[in-house]
Amino acid sequence: MKTRVELGENSYDIIIERGAIKNFSSLTGIKGKVLVVTDDGVPQEYSQKIASQFENAFIYTVPQGEGSKSLDCFGKILSFMLQNNFTRKDSVVACGGGVVGDLSGFVSACYMRGINFYNFPTTVLSQVDSSVGGKTAVNLDGIKNPIGAFHQPKMVVIDPDVLSTLPPRQISNGLAEAVKMSLTSDAELFKVFEEKNILENIDDILFRSVEIKRKVVEQDEKEAGLRMVLNFGHTLGHGIESEEELNGLYHGECIAMGMLPMCSEPVHARLIPVLQKLNLKTSTSFDVDTAMNAVMHDKKSGAGAINTIVVEEVGTCEIKKMTAEELKQKLMIIREG
Amino acid sequence: MKTRVELGENSYDIIIERGAIKNFSSLTGIKGKVLVVTDDGVPQEYSQKIASQFENAFIYTVPQGEGSKSLDCFGKILSFMLQNNFTRKDSVVACGGGVVGDLSGFVSACYMRGINFYNFPTTVLSQVDSSVGGKTAVNLDGIKNPIGAFHQPKMVVIDPDVLSTLPPRQISNGLAEAVKMSLTSDAELFKVFEEKNILENIDDILFRSVEIKRKVVEQDEKEAGLRMVLNFGHTLGHGIESEEELNGLYHGECIAMGMLPMCSEPVHARLIPVLQKLNLKTSTSFDVDTAMNAVMHDKKSGAGAINTIVVEEVGTCEIKKMTAEELKQKLMIIREG
Repeated sequence: MKTRVELGENSYDIIIERGAIKNFSSLTGIKGKVLVVTDDGVPQEYSQKIASQFENAFIYTVPQGEGSKSLDCFGKILSFMLQNNFTRKDSVVACGGGVVGDLSGFVSACYMRGINFYNFPTTVLSQVDSSVGGKTAVNLDGIKNPIGAFHQPKMVVIDPDVLSTLPPRQISNGLAEAVKMSLTSDAELFKVFEEKNILENIDDILFRSVEIKRKVVEQDEKEAGLRMVLNFGHTLGHGIESEEELNGLYHGECIAMGMLPMCSEPVHARLIPVLQKLNLKTSTSFDVDTAMNAVMHDKKSGAGAINTIVVEEVGTCEIKKMTAEELKQKLMIIREG
Repeated sequence: MKTRVELGENSYDIIIERGAIKNFSSLTGIKGKVLVVTDDGVPQEYSQKIASQFENAFIYTVPQGEGSKSLDCFGKILSFMLQNNFTRKDSVVACGGGVVGDLSGFVSACYMRGINFYNFPTTVLSQVDSSVGGKTAVNLDGIKNPIGAFHQPKMVVIDPDVLSTLPPRQISNGLAEAVKMSLTSDAELFKVFEEKNILENIDDILFRSVEIKRKVVEQDEKEAGLRMVLNFGHTLGHGIESEEELNGLYHGECIAMGMLPMCSEPVHARLIPVLQKLNLKTSTSFDVDTAMNAVMHDKKSGAGAINTIVVEEVGTCEIKKMTAEELKQKLMIIREG
């Protein structure tokens, strides 16, 4: 399956194909030097399989986890590229999940003021969401993603076969974003989650999710408005996530919980069993003040009130301004104890 | 005087007006928080005069010199903005020379994936050149500008009155870039340098230089080709500049020398007296290998040969590919001893 993100001179193809990793070089047609960025949680065979298809390829491995989305790591990769004489005509390939994609995408945006970037996402989360759209970022001072750039990839290659090495928890973590997209934009997809065997339908879920993301990105490349629908669940989710090291939750797990208080009662009632089917938590314990601090620092915040996305009916959504006090009350809904 | 850089949604005005600093707020119409970035070599009254015109303004002062164009400094300013709750709707103002403009422009490009940037250049060099065009950057590992972004300002405000506090050497340093632009693009402007009192004609020189820069940037925002004319003198100039700490030369002084080997004999013969009139050196001592290393790392380099700009006739120029060996021979022309 193939789809194309139409963004004028920044347009690019997204390829969803089992076994695509073996044809990465011919699919992308990359010339020149290649830097494959990966992390030590991704099976080494993936980055090696990609690198081996190019004459002049380097692999740079960062430690797994959010800690690698730092200015420090950013600078180290840039230094590595300078040392190896990368020019503006060379390319960077992300081979990993969202951390690798965000970090190496930001590196690509800034090296020589922008070089070609290709994304080979290896997790469900990055396949359905972060690999498409050109948002790149690193964290700073405990805040998620305040530093970054919009830098569209030249191509995204999604190979569902690589998901076979993922633990079930990671798969559910990623599917939380697909559930998110179904709630705001695709009632049929939500029914797949409700009624069908999820793993048996994963290719279809990936494609439908990517299509939703594609359409949103096409209409709002720089997140001026519409693209906000993708932030459904993220305002509160980022709040909980800021305590990640304390509670050990993944991004998608936080987003799953972050959606619940932003749904109408009937939608909430349908969402709970879907999250349970995916073994996703529906509440957790966290310090409200710490979480609120992160919520208010969230990059989607304008001066004063914060725009959030709410879902009154499955498959549709709207923007609602909420004050800090309202958001705090929402947070309490998903707080245990 | 006012001119407008036409770049679609990235268009902006350049205002050249004596006393403009006093009207900075009304000229720009900035709303929201303002971060004025300056360095400790710029008279404090300038940044204070700008900040005092806004309700919610902060001044961030970096040490004077290239050392501040670092990822470290970049991160510190970003942290400062996070601490002070800057949002995507707030603004950054550069009040200084090229270092301040490049650094704070890059900060603006990356904070929340891009916020409004205004430039109030306080040196001739930044007024005639670096403030227009949206190129932002920091240095890394001793290489100049390998990390950065294209991020156009929302407005450039040029006040020739602020030049009165500049030492003559700094003025000549900046005028080197204006000479550069006259050589590649405006034979009449070159005659001003040859025949007229330069300081008495500074407003005209500023305007004509900005106009050249504007036209080039309009035709080639992302430096795909034509914009290369602005790099006349820079390939070798950057090479010499990499040894800046050893030889204590300014950017424009290096560019002035970098132009000489790239001119035809008749142009060279006319350029020498103009540089002398401006008290700019026409040769200097440096280590050729160190300089060549910087030349080959220069961001304009594609794989293999390097595109350089040569001037056969005043007011016109062309692109010429040169090998490392040819460039080394060119470097020897401006090497003393």
